[in-house]
Amino acid sequence: MVIEFGVLTSRQDAYGHQLYDFYKGRPVVECVERDDGYIDPNPALPKYYLSEYKDWTPREKKSVQYAKGRILDIGSGGGRWSLYLQKKGLDVLGVDNSPLAVKVCKTRGVNNVRVRPISEIDSRLGKFDTILMMGNNFGLFGSFKQARQLLKRFYEMTSPGARIIAESLDIYKPPVDPLHRQYHLRNRKLGRMPGQVRMRLRYRTFVTPWFDYLLVSKKQMWTILQGTGWKVNRFIDGPGPVYVAIIDRI
Amino acid sequence: MVIEFGVLTSRQDAYGHQLYDFYKGRPVVECVERDDGYIDPNPALPKYYLSEYKDWTPREKKSVQYAKGRILDIGSGGGRWSLYLQKKGLDVLGVDNSPLAVKVCKTRGVNNVRVRPISEIDSRLGKFDTILMMGNNFGLFGSFKQARQLLKRFYEMTSPGARIIAESLDIYKPPVDPLHRQYHLRNRKLGRMPGQVRMRLRYRTFVTPWFDYLLVSKKQMWTILQGTGWKVNRFIDGPGPVYVAIIDRI
Repeated sequence: MVIEFGVLTSRQDAYGHQLYDFYKGRPVVECVERDDGYIDPNPALPKYYLSEYKDWTPREKKSVQYAKGRILDIGSGGGRWSLYLQKKGLDVLGVDNSPLAVKVCKTRGVNNVRVRPISEIDSRLGKFDTILMMGNNFGLFGSFKQARQLLKRFYEMTSPGARIIAESLDIYKPPVDPLHRQYHLRNRKLGRMPGQVRMRLRYRTFVTPWFDYLLVSKKQMWTILQGTGWKVNRFIDGPGPVYVAIIDRI
Repeated sequence: MVIEFGVLTSRQDAYGHQLYDFYKGRPVVECVERDDGYIDPNPALPKYYLSEYKDWTPREKKSVQYAKGRILDIGSGGGRWSLYLQKKGLDVLGVDNSPLAVKVCKTRGVNNVRVRPISEIDSRLGKFDTILMMGNNFGLFGSFKQARQLLKRFYEMTSPGARIIAESLDIYKPPVDPLHRQYHLRNRKLGRMPGQVRMRLRYRTFVTPWFDYLLVSKKQMWTILQGTGWKVNRFIDGPGPVYVAIIDRI
């Protein structure tokens, strides 16, 4: 079963409301709830979504240099990537399933950004040379099956020599929290990928539907890419479990 | 209906686990969930529970001066009050329904502290001259009815001239968040006190049972005290909606 994660209604748009409120100067803590009851409040996140180039990690700064040509920024959030690339004179289109996030992007000056869930990204948006999935947004693929379907669709939407710049989190990189390890095992038993995290975001009384967010090791990413027309060119590591893959169109 | 809020099991002891982990140096955000779905993550709280006299607010510093004789510290948490009073040579007993909070108290050097929910506080603990309910802990009374029952019981457990030092939050003090106002109205319709907040605490996969935490205006506090043998001597205000009542045994 793949959980549909379409355009968020206002009641569901916990992500957009927290982003908008933070942008307007309100203190905000992002709160993720996992389907095993694990709750993960993170005070750093809203700030991260709006962070500027000078505050990026070396991994992020290195990764963004791979962006070229016409760029699709998937899960554009607060517009940190789109804004940077646009300022560099690149042609970038941001998409996000959060209407309020898109509003924040527009207010911040992103020229091209649309409300669009990943499941509705297709060739009607035109051809791209780069697909950006930063901020762990390889996770938006949701599941093994949907990742492969979308990768094949992305192949059709891209030019020869195109690339995907995708960030993920290696769930096996030590130290692994015992609670997370337990969750990975439970997922395996349910026939899901170990890092297929069913979660929802909560902010005040806003709450997203449950959705699957897919975290993978490098090896798992290789496996997912097999036969989709894409292959890893290189990985860019950071000090923690998060890494970026530069993925080439074959 | 009054929700029973007895001694917490380890799985339920979200409060104690977050306190213990914070005490051990782990970053912790306290996360309160209200029964209307409102979620309130607060990064400042664990630190507050362990804060030392020098970091207290003027309201807190002023309030603690009213403590005298044998003292009962209800909801002693991380032991901030008990430790301070004990160091000043006063005879203080801390009680908390969180076994891990009691463990933290003991580790930090509180000499007298017991695992005991407020509903099981009675004259078997001996006579007291001061009952402390700081940190909004007037809220532990839970409801109008239970507050009055416990106040009468506290009367029996205290000496002539005894006092209660209780902190609460005036839910009507502007600015009132529209979401909270809506919640107060809903409570009224359900025959509950407007500030009778049904909530639970969540930390990782630990979650307390739902319990009622009672926030009252000064006027509502006066009404609750009527005929219980207690009356307000004075209020100590701060800059926000939180205030302390010095309550005298009649």
